[in-house]
Amino acid sequence: MTADRTQPEAGSARLDEEQDAYRDALAERLAGFLDDQSAAMARISDDVAPLMGAITGLVTGGKRLRALLCYWGWRGAGGRQLGAEAVQAGAALELFQAAALIHDDIIDRSDIRRGGPSVHRRFGTLHRERGWALDEERFGTAAAILTGDLCLSFSEEAFTAIGPAAAAGTSARRIFNTMRAEVMAGQYLDILEEVAGPSRSRSEAVNAAANVIRYKSAKYSTEHPLGIGGALAGADESLLAAYSRFSLPLGEAFQLRDDVLGVFGDPQTTGKPAGDDLREGKRTVLVAFALERATSEGAALLERSLGQQELGDDDVERLRDVISSSGALDATENLIDGLSERAFEALDALRLPDDIRGALRSLGLSAVQRAA
Amino acid sequence: MTADRTQPEAGSARLDEEQDAYRDALAERLAGFLDDQSAAMARISDDVAPLMGAITGLVTGGKRLRALLCYWGWRGAGGRQLGAEAVQAGAALELFQAAALIHDDIIDRSDIRRGGPSVHRRFGTLHRERGWALDEERFGTAAAILTGDLCLSFSEEAFTAIGPAAAAGTSARRIFNTMRAEVMAGQYLDILEEVAGPSRSRSEAVNAAANVIRYKSAKYSTEHPLGIGGALAGADESLLAAYSRFSLPLGEAFQLRDDVLGVFGDPQTTGKPAGDDLREGKRTVLVAFALERATSEGAALLERSLGQQELGDDDVERLRDVISSSGALDATENLIDGLSERAFEALDALRLPDDIRGALRSLGLSAVQRAA
Repeated sequence: MTADRTQPEAGSARLDEEQDAYRDALAERLAGFLDDQSAAMARISDDVAPLMGAITGLVTGGKRLRALLCYWGWRGAGGRQLGAEAVQAGAALELFQAAALIHDDIIDRSDIRRGGPSVHRRFGTLHRERGWALDEERFGTAAAILTGDLCLSFSEEAFTAIGPAAAAGTSARRIFNTMRAEVMAGQYLDILEEVAGPSRSRSEAVNAAANVIRYKSAKYSTEHPLGIGGALAGADESLLAAYSRFSLPLGEAFQLRDDVLGVFGDPQTTGKPAGDDLREGKRTVLVAFALERATSEGAALLERSLGQQELGDDDVERLRDVISSSGALDATENLIDGLSERAFEALDALRLPDDIRGALRSLGLSAVQRAA
Repeated sequence: MTADRTQPEAGSARLDEEQDAYRDALAERLAGFLDDQSAAMARISDDVAPLMGAITGLVTGGKRLRALLCYWGWRGAGGRQLGAEAVQAGAALELFQAAALIHDDIIDRSDIRRGGPSVHRRFGTLHRERGWALDEERFGTAAAILTGDLCLSFSEEAFTAIGPAAAAGTSARRIFNTMRAEVMAGQYLDILEEVAGPSRSRSEAVNAAANVIRYKSAKYSTEHPLGIGGALAGADESLLAAYSRFSLPLGEAFQLRDDVLGVFGDPQTTGKPAGDDLREGKRTVLVAFALERATSEGAALLERSLGQQELGDDDVERLRDVISSSGALDATENLIDGLSERAFEALDALRLPDDIRGALRSLGLSAVQRAA
């Protein structure tokens, strides 16, 4: 008998406690790591403090999805409660995510991140407030490129500090390497679709968008963090493959949810301006479905509007109408449901202690049902 | 008795041969590493091939200064001829340098690198040739940010693949981590000087520029590569400190030579447009000396012109006159001489086999006497 998947399981209070304790240990580890790095930076010059401030700001917030998946992957493979390796790996994943966000926000010209200014905007503001010479925007971008590079280095430094379980030649290291290369390749495919998409046929668009999702997001946000946790605890290839059967469709559903929120989300909840994905010209699965299914006028309007920075709220509203009335929103929601179903079925089939399965289920549900 | 430092030493033919064999092994290692990565990328999508092409292009050329210093640091600390660790570390350093150049060229708006287009320009050209939508320049920048990130990850992957000698907690790993953080901090101080320099007093400018040189360049181009090689072969702290007494002043002289070439170099030889550093507004030691020593009209002209992209050849010529006639060029050349003198004295004092000392001397001389 399959349990009701929307309900928490027995023993979940104890697990919530364990998860909270992990979050605390993770926050402490990140703070300790960044304190040490800030002290080293201060020996170079006090002027570099804003780089550390930007990184610290980014890793202080967030849903911790990747670190938590890593933790439960570790526990599911027999790792001990609050094991240092899993805490350290979580810190590395959070730093990697921060690095990716910093560069992503430059690439996508996003001014807002989690309700506050993105890193390039923070540096732009610093430039203006100090009355510095030359161009504010260029300085902001340059400083954010360097901050992202620094954060990417920190992520790897934190990962290596795990020690022997993540040394050269281990599965955990192999997954970490694959994760980094795939997310960068996936991000490139994403920006490539923005510029090359208009000249491709509409029937290719959904497949192209699905490939972007897999590499840019699903493998990196869910599959690899879970796998790294498992590998650190000694999971064999068969357990890692079973983890992937759960986490890969989950990650795809997670990113599709993100794409829906990027067009239909409430700015108050998402912390990002409404319709930002449309202004940036993101050719998501949602948009690809709409191009395929809308009336020819609707599709033409959408095609013309994608990537236009100056779209106003009214334009965004009109595009939302095109997308919903074409059936693209329903098609995307159906896809999310189907992928979630597959993910949770695979989770049921995983040979795991019930309480750990329950923790992964709650985490999975929060990833695909979220509003922010 | 001190040998004539401008002359090659006895036994140098054998050393040249060993150095050539190392260069070959390094090129082969880099090619093998990048072939493996390209194969992995091709499994994601053929569309990501241009990222690999850009990285391969960058690591195929270059002077190999960092890898060679690493190699002789390794040999000087007792490492065996053509040891795999030193070849692998050289590959990691060359990849790191390529990553730094890719992002540096975005930040400095450099269109040319080693006589060919820089990476963001390559992607801009690809965009134009394919007739893609939206903005060519933005696509070029975004793609180059991602290519640099990928290359930075590769650098670390290559470094970790050294194995136990570079594992968590080793001296080699500590130096590698420090190198990355310092160069990013140094680069930030460099762009900060461009914008904040004009509002600081001229008497501070030389010191600020010297600090930039130390972190952006000297530690990363010479001190840390030599130290990493030594540490991999088991050098103790005292040998590493003795290495630094040679390599740090050498690296400062190396960067001062770069700054002189950035204003006075022959574009045919440097592969970069004449006066590019002036257009970018780099506040180098050379420029700081000129601001301090020029006539008030000369200093005002220089201050007004720094960072102006539209400077023509005539303008650059006039600025060169201001810089030379102020005595700033001579002062910089004197500084290069003094630092070189200190470096080579420290090299003489190093307890090393004569032939290895000779190899380090040739390498050092080529770094400070070069025209490109």
